[in-house]
Amino acid sequence: MPTTVSPLAPKSYPDMPEIEGVQFATASAGIKYKGRTDVLLATVCEGTSVAGVFTRSKCSSAPVDWCKARVGDGRARALLVNSGNANAFTGKKGKAAVELSAQIVSGALGCGDAEIFLASTGVIGEPLRAEKFADVVEDLKKDQGSADWLDAARAIMTTDTYPKVATASVDLDGESVSINGIAKGAGMIAPDMATMLSFIFTDAAIAPDVLQALLSAETGRSFNAVTVDSDTSTSDTVLLFATGTAGARGIAPVASLDDPRVDTLRAALGDVMLDLAHQIVRDGEGARKFVEIRVEGAESDTSAKKIALSIANSPLVKTAVAGEDANWGRVVMAVGKAGEPADRDRLAIWFGDIRVAVDGERDPDYSEEAASAVMKEEDIVIQVDLGLGAGQATVWTCDLTKEYVEINGDYRS
Amino acid sequence: MPTTVSPLAPKSYPDMPEIEGVQFATASAGIKYKGRTDVLLATVCEGTSVAGVFTRSKCSSAPVDWCKARVGDGRARALLVNSGNANAFTGKKGKAAVELSAQIVSGALGCGDAEIFLASTGVIGEPLRAEKFADVVEDLKKDQGSADWLDAARAIMTTDTYPKVATASVDLDGESVSINGIAKGAGMIAPDMATMLSFIFTDAAIAPDVLQALLSAETGRSFNAVTVDSDTSTSDTVLLFATGTAGARGIAPVASLDDPRVDTLRAALGDVMLDLAHQIVRDGEGARKFVEIRVEGAESDTSAKKIALSIANSPLVKTAVAGEDANWGRVVMAVGKAGEPADRDRLAIWFGDIRVAVDGERDPDYSEEAASAVMKEEDIVIQVDLGLGAGQATVWTCDLTKEYVEINGDYRS
Repeated sequence: MPTTVSPLAPKSYPDMPEIEGVQFATASAGIKYKGRTDVLLATVCEGTSVAGVFTRSKCSSAPVDWCKARVGDGRARALLVNSGNANAFTGKKGKAAVELSAQIVSGALGCGDAEIFLASTGVIGEPLRAEKFADVVEDLKKDQGSADWLDAARAIMTTDTYPKVATASVDLDGESVSINGIAKGAGMIAPDMATMLSFIFTDAAIAPDVLQALLSAETGRSFNAVTVDSDTSTSDTVLLFATGTAGARGIAPVASLDDPRVDTLRAALGDVMLDLAHQIVRDGEGARKFVEIRVEGAESDTSAKKIALSIANSPLVKTAVAGEDANWGRVVMAVGKAGEPADRDRLAIWFGDIRVAVDGERDPDYSEEAASAVMKEEDIVIQVDLGLGAGQATVWTCDLTKEYVEINGDYRS
Repeated sequence: MPTTVSPLAPKSYPDMPEIEGVQFATASAGIKYKGRTDVLLATVCEGTSVAGVFTRSKCSSAPVDWCKARVGDGRARALLVNSGNANAFTGKKGKAAVELSAQIVSGALGCGDAEIFLASTGVIGEPLRAEKFADVVEDLKKDQGSADWLDAARAIMTTDTYPKVATASVDLDGESVSINGIAKGAGMIAPDMATMLSFIFTDAAIAPDVLQALLSAETGRSFNAVTVDSDTSTSDTVLLFATGTAGARGIAPVASLDDPRVDTLRAALGDVMLDLAHQIVRDGEGARKFVEIRVEGAESDTSAKKIALSIANSPLVKTAVAGEDANWGRVVMAVGKAGEPADRDRLAIWFGDIRVAVDGERDPDYSEEAASAVMKEEDIVIQVDLGLGAGQATVWTCDLTKEYVEINGDYRS
């Protein structure tokens, strides 16, 4: 486990408001780590809606399979998360382990198995000894409410160097509702699906189908717009719980996407998701730079996003950023290899505010000194205008450093 | 420039037979490097056929555009290659530079511009001062024949740590013809197109359309089956020249793909191309391990290749190899993210001869010790059986080390 916190870590954490109906407890079950919490039990009150997005990996983990089969019902009572073992590629043993995990929790809480959601993160291929949850479940039940949001976020960390939380509040019917989220992730982070683990809670009353639509809509511009290393996990899971406890304050349930309050909710949810997604990039394994990549002038938004990801995932672009080298030729390379419509001779590229290339060649006013100054910043914007159409996209990534290689050369040992 | 030779470099070089009609000279034009050759002029005799495959980058270099526009005529008299500057993303200046380059060579040799082929490799975005070729062209003309195959290969190196040559001979009509090739490449190496620079010469008489068909057919299993870093160059070029000088020894021209000698030629050409492609991977920037990835049991060969490349390009697989960590869970991850048909519960994985996973979980006889012993080897085979069909593919890559990050953090400076 890393011993030093990422230099890109948030300097402070927000005050997380209480979400009525949500309670946490954490425990040390000794799944893999010693001397730290590795299990989180979140309970949610009766009537809680749930929505989820999951990895599109063909080798998805047993807990992902479990959640996907149950999230359609839209009802939840508890979430059990462990770190240290992903319960992925564990065959029949993995299926048995999720079933046992759910039974342990449902037995303790007195609810149905189908309302228990599960997530696991850590090593792939190692059988998960779910019986360890039985050792701690009574304590977890007794301690419900004893852990705060940071404690919860800490219990699900693996190679993360800091816990990740975010919050937003919105006014509905003249009353405030909150959206709180936690997340983990630092490596095996790639877009094109719901990435890593994140759990988001709101006290608003939102029907399951509306909740799912909101979550799916906001995933594209947040979790699916970040990449650390282009490698997509077997375990990626985002779950969004709506307890509906705000109803006691006279806030009417959101029952349809036509509800005029949906836009406000969606924007706030999106902000929380984007905040958490950025925190994952800022904790990217070995990261020293946070890079925003804006592509505009593409033939479509989809095309812009593919090009942006081609830049964000390029080892040569990422190592140039690590070396503080204003090597815009590698950005050209990454645009060219994306396979999307591009006209070399219309391309323009900026590092920060400095235009380094225009009309298919180096900017006539190019200053190596000015471009290099941008690269020395901690947060760097790389902007590309393709000059073809109105398509645009923004994605975020980090640099590729020797520390990434070091961390991943001996993660298991 | 690197000062130490890759530990994976060939221990010896083959004796390269003469190819009648092909002559080399090299010069130091001071394009970027000091104290080494950086220009290669290869002349080929009248009547030489040529075929080529090129990068599919949308931001291809000016020399690639030049060659693509002329290779269809199938006739060549000379090849001019420089290292140190790719003449890529250089706009109108780049186009003017290739035109001037061709004129300088055609003027010296007294042939048409359209028979001059050009390739440049090095930094992207820096205007190429083609007038420097004028300073050396008379010497190059005078010295034709003074450089051998290794000299030729050395003149086109950039971050390469050793020159790359390969040769094969085949019997046609009871006489031997030769196929000699040189190549350069160590970074910005990715498949899905003709990758890096390679120039191959044979004294067989082969019609241009047959030559092109042979070259295109063999690219898929050689240059398009290797990857160093998933980044595809703007300048990738493979040119194949057939001088036809073997005709003087009574060997009839190969005028059609139906010629029974085509299979023999294709196999020998493929061997030379594969040898050169492997040498590029073995010189992968920072490489310490050579990795062969075999995928079988896929739904199709195309699907198998996509999965094999997903494994070969995964930073987490490559860093695990660097760390000598038998982390087969990352192979599962890379299979899962490829987006191709896969059934987790039919998957089997081997490191060398050691089966580490079967039926969607860790092999019951798994031995960490045995798997780790494989990872300590210099050449490592990772094999995946998907258990779905008869599709198969093999690709080659190297590990991802701290040295890769170091080399690419300050390549320009």
